[in-house]
Amino acid sequence: MYSVGVREHVMIAHSFQGEVFGPAQKLHGATFIVDCEFRGPSLAEGNILVDIGRAGEALKAIAAEINYQNLDDLPMFAGINTTTEFLARHVLDRMRAAIKDGRLGPGGEGVTSLKVTLWESHVAWAAYEAEV
Amino acid sequence: MYSVGVREHVMIAHSFQGEVFGPAQKLHGATFIVDCEFRGPSLAEGNILVDIGRAGEALKAIAAEINYQNLDDLPMFAGINTTTEFLARHVLDRMRAAIKDGRLGPGGEGVTSLKVTLWESHVAWAAYEAEV
Amino acid sequence: MYSVGVREHVMIAHSFQGEVFGPAQKLHGATFIVDCEFRGPSLAEGNILVDIGRAGEALKAIAAEINYQNLDDLPMFAGINTTTEFLARHVLDRMRAAIKDGRLGPGGEGVTSLKVTLWESHVAWAAYEAEV
Amino acid sequence: MYSVGVREHVMIAHSFQGEVFGPAQKLHGATFIVDCEFRGPSLAEGNILVDIGRAGEALKAIAAEINYQNLDDLPMFAGINTTTEFLARHVLDRMRAAIKDGRLGPGGEGVTSLKVTLWESHVAWAAYEAEV
Amino acid sequence: MYSVGVREHVMIAHSFQGEVFGPAQKLHGATFIVDCEFRGPSLAEGNILVDIGRAGEALKAIAAEINYQNLDDLPMFAGINTTTEFLARHVLDRMRAAIKDGRLGPGGEGVTSLKVTLWESHVAWAAYEAEV
Amino acid sequence: MYSVGVREHVMIAHSFQGEVFGPAQKLHGATFIVDCEFRGPSLAEGNILVDIGRAGEALKAIAAEINYQNLDDLPMFAGINTTTEFLARHVLDRMRAAIKDGRLGPGGEGVTSLKVTLWESHVAWAAYEAEV
Repeated sequence: MYSVGVREHVMIAHSFQGEVFGPAQKLHGATFIVDCEFRGPSLAEGNILVDIGRAGEALKAIAAEINYQNLDDLPMFAGINTTTEFLARHVLDRMRAAIKDGRLGPGGEGVTSLKVTLWESHVAWAAYEAEV
Repeated sequence: MYSVGVREHVMIAHSFQGEVFGPAQKLHGATFIVDCEFRGPSLAEGNILVDIGRAGEALKAIAAEINYQNLDDLPMFAGINTTTEFLARHVLDRMRAAIKDGRLGPGGEGVTSLKVTLWESHVAWAAYEAEV
Repeated sequence: MYSVGVREHVMIAHSFQGEVFGPAQKLHGATFIVDCEFRGPSLAEGNILVDIGRAGEALKAIAAEINYQNLDDLPMFAGINTTTEFLARHVLDRMRAAIKDGRLGPGGEGVTSLKVTLWESHVAWAAYEAEV
Repeated sequence: MYSVGVREHVMIAHSFQGEVFGPAQKLHGATFIVDCEFRGPSLAEGNILVDIGRAGEALKAIAAEINYQNLDDLPMFAGINTTTEFLARHVLDRMRAAIKDGRLGPGGEGVTSLKVTLWESHVAWAAYEAEV
Repeated sequence: MYSVGVREHVMIAHSFQGEVFGPAQKLHGATFIVDCEFRGPSLAEGNILVDIGRAGEALKAIAAEINYQNLDDLPMFAGINTTTEFLARHVLDRMRAAIKDGRLGPGGEGVTSLKVTLWESHVAWAAYEAEV
Repeated sequence: MYSVGVREHVMIAHSFQGEVFGPAQKLHGATFIVDCEFRGPSLAEGNILVDIGRAGEALKAIAAEINYQNLDDLPMFAGINTTTEFLARHVLDRMRAAIKDGRLGPGGEGVTSLKVTLWESHVAWAAYEAEV
């Protein structure tokens, strides 16, 4: 199995509902380092799994949708706790859609699964992985 | 599959039995950066896999049991080579027990597997992963 | 010249005033990895520049004052752009005060200068250094 | 499942054939940080998965075959795009051969799979994993 | 003293003249992680040392001049050993020129010194610092 | 001012005398990532500050003197607290001697100062810098 990964980051504000979150119930924020990993069993022409340039642009476009935002104010996240786990899945779902839209180019169909990891600090992270 | 990870570290002394270890047969030591990853297929209420606060405290408590120790002197490790591989499994076994004791709180039952990685330096590491 | 450093982090929300900030004029957030470096020309008894345990606790206490906050709402930052540069100085000023209050213990008087670095992402940071 | 990893690096020149590569069609170069991970279900005598000393030497020897080279000039890569994905597989194939040659020593037969990750920068990487 | 830093990277080929370079006399290559640090004694309006957006664009433009190149073929480096030390100075000299051209905007005049660090691997780097 | 840096690591055991050290009074251990930085105002023939190959070998030789040791048992450290600060100076003093012995080769005389940083974990470090 091959994999290719690219890294981006976003700087957002948000707050959480639920006593379990303690002080994170207040409006605070995070820099998320976003790692998106593309996986597939074989390489396409030119010996690439995906066009890494297009992969990077696709991730940048997905990051731009939430970058410099207060996530509490985004309609798509209304009433939702935008935890690191949740956001990892959000980015993965958006990337899966980008692949299906052909935004990775002709090589995109070789990607069979994805993993998105969000580092919220140097000591904590969350990830989501799924089939394409 | 979701995952959530937290990082701790321990500073220990130990020695190894066996010619394969070369100079590491002598009493020496290590800082182990300890990464504990919790995995599960779905999120609990509030969009979390585990309460990351409790997860961090559980890992800190497990680390504290061996931190600032000469592992050669600990009864639980008597006659055992406390290699990085072995210690990764030790931490995982202790975390599995912590989960079964309910120390991760109500969300803990959603964790179906664990992975513990110990970095012994910037160029070497070992890990152990297993079902809960 | 000796130096000793400890690392903490904070997760905050804030916004900036001024066209130069572009999209960062909106309410957003950041994880700041906070590195505080203590410097001095000689070591105190026991071969330490500072008691690193106390240094870590002092930095944690300073971080706690702003952690999980919307900085726009803190009276001490009213009308102020809490840029990374500014916050580096803020942390340094607070640490200087902590040293003068004796919170680093008897070794604290050997610290002649400080440097505080805030990493806002894996690709951008700011720092402030000054005499104690 | 246990895993043990070691890190090396190589500094090479190469160029790519194919419009998808854009400016990377020109002769350029890369430092690849090479992480090789050995995996197996159980530990051998002494509580090790592999002799990490031998594992490191084996990886260094494999790296040395391509280090400080223009990969375009190596007969074994003639007419091949030496992408990061391809090189990850190349290193894995060479390590599999090294294991079969007994270069990891008696513990080597416990390794059931390998993963090789090549970091081409702080924001992009590729990997290949396979059974031994 | 304040400082602000931004990170880029380049992927280049080159070779060195001189026996001291051993195998690096052959055509090989490197990924250089390029850190550019801007320093100044005070903050401009808005509490910034420099417009970090413009600083990042300026560094990206300087990196683009050498990115994906065989440095041996660039007229500006004819007959020159483009060592890591040399390239650190090259980037700094180009950034100094960019500042003098006003490419950092109105805040640029507050920058009194620069430091450029190039990481050639995870275990080796070089830097150059100088007044503006 | 130019600088060139190389990285090594050591894995040692030791204990500290003095109540200030709390649990670190017991025999424990550490992996120290050792960064040695060479500085000088100008480059020698070939555009290098030092022969980085020789610099790396010199640092490796200095590290080997203490690697895999219980520092409490080394005669040269008898009755001494081998704190991170102290060890940073120890490594620097040894490197200064290596330079004076000509072990960096003909370029060594261009090095005017040194900085040695020891990372004891991902969240704590110490350094010592001095003239050659």
